[in-house]
Amino acid sequence: MQYNTTIDHIRLTDDGRGIVILDQSQLPNKTEYVELRTAEEMYGAIKTLRVRGAPVIGIFAAFAAYCLGLQIECCDYETFLKKFTGTAEYLSSSRPTAVNLSWALNRMVETVRKRPGRPPSQIIPDLLTEARAILEEDIAMCLAISEFGLSLLKDGDGILTHCNAGQIATSRYGTALGPILLGRERGMQFRVYADETRPLLQGARLTAWELQNAGVDVTLICDNMASMVMKKGYVQYCFVGCDRIAANGDTANKIGTSGVAIMAKHYGIPFYVLGPTSTIDLATPTGSEIEIELRDPDEIRLKWYSEPMAPRGVKCYNPAFDVTDNSLISGIITEKGICRAPYSESLAALLK
Amino acid sequence: MQYNTTIDHIRLTDDGRGIVILDQSQLPNKTEYVELRTAEEMYGAIKTLRVRGAPVIGIFAAFAAYCLGLQIECCDYETFLKKFTGTAEYLSSSRPTAVNLSWALNRMVETVRKRPGRPPSQIIPDLLTEARAILEEDIAMCLAISEFGLSLLKDGDGILTHCNAGQIATSRYGTALGPILLGRERGMQFRVYADETRPLLQGARLTAWELQNAGVDVTLICDNMASMVMKKGYVQYCFVGCDRIAANGDTANKIGTSGVAIMAKHYGIPFYVLGPTSTIDLATPTGSEIEIELRDPDEIRLKWYSEPMAPRGVKCYNPAFDVTDNSLISGIITEKGICRAPYSESLAALLK
Repeated sequence: MQYNTTIDHIRLTDDGRGIVILDQSQLPNKTEYVELRTAEEMYGAIKTLRVRGAPVIGIFAAFAAYCLGLQIECCDYETFLKKFTGTAEYLSSSRPTAVNLSWALNRMVETVRKRPGRPPSQIIPDLLTEARAILEEDIAMCLAISEFGLSLLKDGDGILTHCNAGQIATSRYGTALGPILLGRERGMQFRVYADETRPLLQGARLTAWELQNAGVDVTLICDNMASMVMKKGYVQYCFVGCDRIAANGDTANKIGTSGVAIMAKHYGIPFYVLGPTSTIDLATPTGSEIEIELRDPDEIRLKWYSEPMAPRGVKCYNPAFDVTDNSLISGIITEKGICRAPYSESLAALLK
Repeated sequence: MQYNTTIDHIRLTDDGRGIVILDQSQLPNKTEYVELRTAEEMYGAIKTLRVRGAPVIGIFAAFAAYCLGLQIECCDYETFLKKFTGTAEYLSSSRPTAVNLSWALNRMVETVRKRPGRPPSQIIPDLLTEARAILEEDIAMCLAISEFGLSLLKDGDGILTHCNAGQIATSRYGTALGPILLGRERGMQFRVYADETRPLLQGARLTAWELQNAGVDVTLICDNMASMVMKKGYVQYCFVGCDRIAANGDTANKIGTSGVAIMAKHYGIPFYVLGPTSTIDLATPTGSEIEIELRDPDEIRLKWYSEPMAPRGVKCYNPAFDVTDNSLISGIITEKGICRAPYSESLAALLK
């Protein structure tokens, strides 16, 4: 299959030694591109969500590792491997829950490991090739997921989505938004209800922005309005992305996803998880083993507001993700096909 | 029953001719008390939500009418009645949909009507008595609801609440927060999880403030975190207020309440509605007949933020309330006792 393998929101600088990213933390008010050159800037871009969305974090980290590899000043293989591994571990620690991040960085480290004794100058071009492969695989993967997802939809359907699993979270099309954007490209129209997704508002800032730009009929709602939208019959499907899928199908995704799934089940609305097979982690037996990142309370109390919206010093509980029980999931849509329950069998079969 | 019948957030000025209120629109950043003396100031306090919460609006309006009655300069009964009625109508027009507002003002006008021919100087003390009666009845009602609710709880329980149905929305204790505040007064301690309640953030701005002030262990969460809090076993009960209860027990309350109820049922957590019997509307057979107010999209896109959090012109759906199906409600706690399913029987019996 042929497709354009450059994307606008993650690319190398003109001198090929740094990365230019679309700063997602500035959306929707500013479409700002920033140049990142140091390890600290790259780590910070992930940590502060300038780059966010599991697949794009992987792509970004691969190109970041390549650029930082270029900067390692040494000549012998062992020192290079040690320094490069250290850099990868540093980048990987920016978001411990994101499996794509460590997955992509492992591929980059493996690229070095598989070339023992070679001078770094000969390894570095292979690191670029590997990063490009990760990007190209992601584009192919998104397209395949989008095709499988689109096969469920008919023109005019209503779809509720949570957080942002669109093009800017991946390479192209996205995962949860992929079927919608691919369908739109083919002249279909859907009615999308986007949860604003507190506290970081990825739904309001990113999904609404992305779908509006693509000419999709999108309606923004507060997270607590999903029940009413479902009850009214406005949506026929829920499509969400995923950060990690355990061997039994339990799925970690943006906080609030499990609530959407429970409400969807209550109202009899099919609830689908869309994501690449790289998100499936057979080494994690169930959702209980998935570590959930707890974030700064000020994201709830203070962030975005012109003045604090909660009393000073009040406790906040701010988990970044939750786990949706496999029993609530109608299907998991991957680039290799749609898995159905029992997931411990269908996911294992898919990865064989 | 004996209790203190002065409340801090609505009280007469020292000279007894004006009202001091806690300005709720400044919370949680400023605890500001303002003196209101003119009809325009009193009207404005309701209109701009300095005073909010159905029961407290009624109490405030009663004392406001008394103060404005004091200011009417005339001596004959007919002129006094005419001017007093005009004043009441003016106050009532500040929030035409607030049932408690017109209900309380009607009681004040009736107090004048029932004393035909008497000089105003003899009627005015009765207006103060009537305003005090409205306040005292509300305190007794809240206390009874709180006692019934508290009978369900044991020390250390976790309670999830949505929006604000506390003391500042009523006279004392509140409805949904009543059992918690009454228990605290008696030396009990609970762990309360307060939904922030988008888009107007009553949970973050008011509930968290109120519970923190009362020394209650309160944790603020985003609405979409309720599922995780329930799954973790942090809460044993959900307590919410209500705006209208249909004859079959279907309950209209702040948007998001129905989602909380669905999640509570999924996790096997009892879900209780707390409110006065005046909220039960036997003339409304089911929740489908309750009209839901749709509010300004800018409450979602723009309000509170230092810059817009959604792309310009994106559609928003902003219902102020939703309806929780009676099948999701473990009990309805009123000042006359706790109703259980089937509600069409238990609610009718309660109002007999």
